[in-house]
Amino acid sequence: MTKVDEALALKTAELVRQTHEAGIPVMVVFEGIPASGKSRLSNELLLTLDAKYTNFYATQRPDSELLRYPFLYPYWKNIPNKGGVTLFFRSWYAQKLDYEIHELKKDIIKDYDLLTQEIVGFESMLKEDGYEIIKFYLSVNEQKRLEHIQQTKKNPLTRWKAQEYETGIPTKDYQEGMIDLMKATEEISPWTHIDYTERGKAANEMYETIIKRLEKALKEKKKKTENRTVDGAFTENFSTDMFDDTSDDMSKAEYKELLPKLQNRIRELQYALYQEKIPMMLVYEGMDAAGKGGNIKRVRESLDPTGYEVNAISAPTETELSYHYLWRFATDVPRSGHIEIFDRSWYGRVLVERVEGFASTDEWQRAYDEINKFERALTIEGSIVIKFFLVLDKDEQLKRFEERQVTPEKQWKITDEDWRNREKWDLYLEASKDMIDKTSTDDAPWVIIPANNKRAARIKALKTIITACEERLWGVKKLW
Amino acid sequence: MTKVDEALALKTAELVRQTHEAGIPVMVVFEGIPASGKSRLSNELLLTLDAKYTNFYATQRPDSELLRYPFLYPYWKNIPNKGGVTLFFRSWYAQKLDYEIHELKKDIIKDYDLLTQEIVGFESMLKEDGYEIIKFYLSVNEQKRLEHIQQTKKNPLTRWKAQEYETGIPTKDYQEGMIDLMKATEEISPWTHIDYTERGKAANEMYETIIKRLEKALKEKKKKTENRTVDGAFTENFSTDMFDDTSDDMSKAEYKELLPKLQNRIRELQYALYQEKIPMMLVYEGMDAAGKGGNIKRVRESLDPTGYEVNAISAPTETELSYHYLWRFATDVPRSGHIEIFDRSWYGRVLVERVEGFASTDEWQRAYDEINKFERALTIEGSIVIKFFLVLDKDEQLKRFEERQVTPEKQWKITDEDWRNREKWDLYLEASKDMIDKTSTDDAPWVIIPANNKRAARIKALKTIITACEERLWGVKKLW
Repeated sequence: MTKVDEALALKTAELVRQTHEAGIPVMVVFEGIPASGKSRLSNELLLTLDAKYTNFYATQRPDSELLRYPFLYPYWKNIPNKGGVTLFFRSWYAQKLDYEIHELKKDIIKDYDLLTQEIVGFESMLKEDGYEIIKFYLSVNEQKRLEHIQQTKKNPLTRWKAQEYETGIPTKDYQEGMIDLMKATEEISPWTHIDYTERGKAANEMYETIIKRLEKALKEKKKKTENRTVDGAFTENFSTDMFDDTSDDMSKAEYKELLPKLQNRIRELQYALYQEKIPMMLVYEGMDAAGKGGNIKRVRESLDPTGYEVNAISAPTETELSYHYLWRFATDVPRSGHIEIFDRSWYGRVLVERVEGFASTDEWQRAYDEINKFERALTIEGSIVIKFFLVLDKDEQLKRFEERQVTPEKQWKITDEDWRNREKWDLYLEASKDMIDKTSTDDAPWVIIPANNKRAARIKALKTIITACEERLWGVKKLW
Repeated sequence: MTKVDEALALKTAELVRQTHEAGIPVMVVFEGIPASGKSRLSNELLLTLDAKYTNFYATQRPDSELLRYPFLYPYWKNIPNKGGVTLFFRSWYAQKLDYEIHELKKDIIKDYDLLTQEIVGFESMLKEDGYEIIKFYLSVNEQKRLEHIQQTKKNPLTRWKAQEYETGIPTKDYQEGMIDLMKATEEISPWTHIDYTERGKAANEMYETIIKRLEKALKEKKKKTENRTVDGAFTENFSTDMFDDTSDDMSKAEYKELLPKLQNRIRELQYALYQEKIPMMLVYEGMDAAGKGGNIKRVRESLDPTGYEVNAISAPTETELSYHYLWRFATDVPRSGHIEIFDRSWYGRVLVERVEGFASTDEWQRAYDEINKFERALTIEGSIVIKFFLVLDKDEQLKRFEERQVTPEKQWKITDEDWRNREKWDLYLEASKDMIDKTSTDDAPWVIIPANNKRAARIKALKTIITACEERLWGVKKLW
């Protein structure tokens, strides 16, 4: 019988110290039918790695709380940060099959193949960001497997564990489902099949695979760092037609009459969304001083605070920077029936990060597609997603900046950064235009709101939200 | 009718910007019977504060997942960091009454007054750490309240909300329970009663209270910063008797025979704990190179990785430093049936932080009591807590350090810091002695393990764990 080769374990530990130092995030997936050796093999690896940066996530049948979140939510939550390692004992693969075979969220997810698309998107964007994803599929001699289950059954202290095997995903369905899933994802990052019949041999194969992959990842990381270019890629002539309309009009009297009615309606709709378990994401982007805060205030003023949250996005913290840039948003999506309002958002990637050169050319250019995939995953699972872009003209911005400077309770709102951004007006305009062109989709459209008149802008946002909710709830498109 | 005074709202916003800048964490609690105005008043405050550092947590009837954690777990998770604000819509108070009145976890929590003790401990230690806790109890004219409920009932979109009021904590029980709880906690941080019958008046009272409290907090913060002293307070003569015994003996043969038996048993017990929903915390402290890692490895080697986690504690990150020092541990306690192993722990506060002067005199001196309360909260709710202190003598440490330096695969384990710590051997010894004297309790005892002989140390730890589990599971104290 082959023994576990200590030298391979030591080499793996050493390489993971190196990927840790180099800031490479590593994900290791263990899939396989019950009693195929997943827990024993993953524990072998777990024992080898430094607990300081190694995490372990076990996929369970999602409970009612987890089902309130998108399919990939627990995995976004548990991706490693740069230099970290997460072992996934069963993963988004088993989870997809669990959804499909047990028809979870059937009314919402019309077609479970959409989840496969989500998986492909998820792995692809992590890989593009330098995540190393190593996937093992375990199998074992069927006689040995049955013996193992028998043993577990015989011991009164572990008997329930054997029973659990029988209530999970039926073995045959799992095997067949995995064949398709592995085909669909082999290209992104390859699968390694391991026969667990001989424990030592299996462990050595696992280590050899990890060693090979990490050595390659370390080499590629070096190359990538050397080739990094930063360029906002701006053109001289671009059309800004879409931002020409900056000023809808609205009298104070009309505003005062409409506002309470719409606010009252939105509160009712909040409760209706809650009851129907529909989550809603509202995203606010726009020029500085375009009135995002005040607009959001009018939306939330009459809402029940136990059912909404405002996420005001600042520059990322050190922790946030150590993850994929979508991590801090993907882990903050609304649970079913809740409303999440983003005051600025993941679109920072293609706005400030592009303009200021915080993102490399490659990073912001591929972000449009990543963002579309990210939002698509939300809408597939039933979320309403509305994105507002508040448009101000340059003169009106100047007027508001100056007003802020002379009004004591508004002074904190205006900083040197605002003035610096203003100097880059055209660059931000072009970035905004590209963003809207490339990320306005049927399911998650951009709504451009002329914002020179604050009252009109607020009413337009409220009406848009109400219409979207009513349409989703009752299929009617009321003309507000 | 009194209106909301905009000036008070603006002043509150300005003061919170100041507490944010000064790094003062602020908690605002809203309690009161259903339809007493909690959501309307808390939303008023929420709208006033900057979403960048303001969070909102609504206490719900704990679901089955939350019940797997200690009572205070969700509140530890949601305390603000330095400079942050959290509004609690219902809080640990309503939660305590929910536990008591609906007899949640009755078999485990023998006496619900213990939860009141937990609350007192929780608030006290946060207050000591500079947290400002502002607590509002709302009441409202009963006729107005019933009218509000009627309105909610009449509207088909909000009817379910009114029904929810009736399935919660019975109003009378809540009111009576709160009277006792408020009495028990008035001294730590005072309660403010607000009559919500007149909306504007209520809002103004809320703002006035917050303004007064924050102005005071800002003044005290300044004083505190000026008076901070740092002193490890070491004495010249202290007894180290308790660490004299460093060397149990054990032959290789005996070890090889015992180890697999004990490991097998511990795996069985892991499953038994899981089935009985008993959580277990294992804490490892001890001299550098005492063999904590190797000892932990022998404990976990045969465990099912889906049911345990190892927490290897390094220096706190920037994020962790921005919270109460217990935050990173209190949010990482095992859920029911799981095992959490800490390789170093919260005891860092009275060891490295004391010796190196990272904690002020006041901070490390009050930490013994805080830690006892923290662990008591775990054992009250059924957790097994075992703390191992591995004792090495100074010569043996030198031998191990030197061995690490010449063994290629162990070199990463030895750093300059280890040598520096060694120079402070006596200081660490005294800090360790004080720690054991002050924090060894009946429910969470320290187990001192002579560690010159690694084999004996490992076997002793395994036997201790097994005995503790068997005693808890079946009341027997087997003599291993």
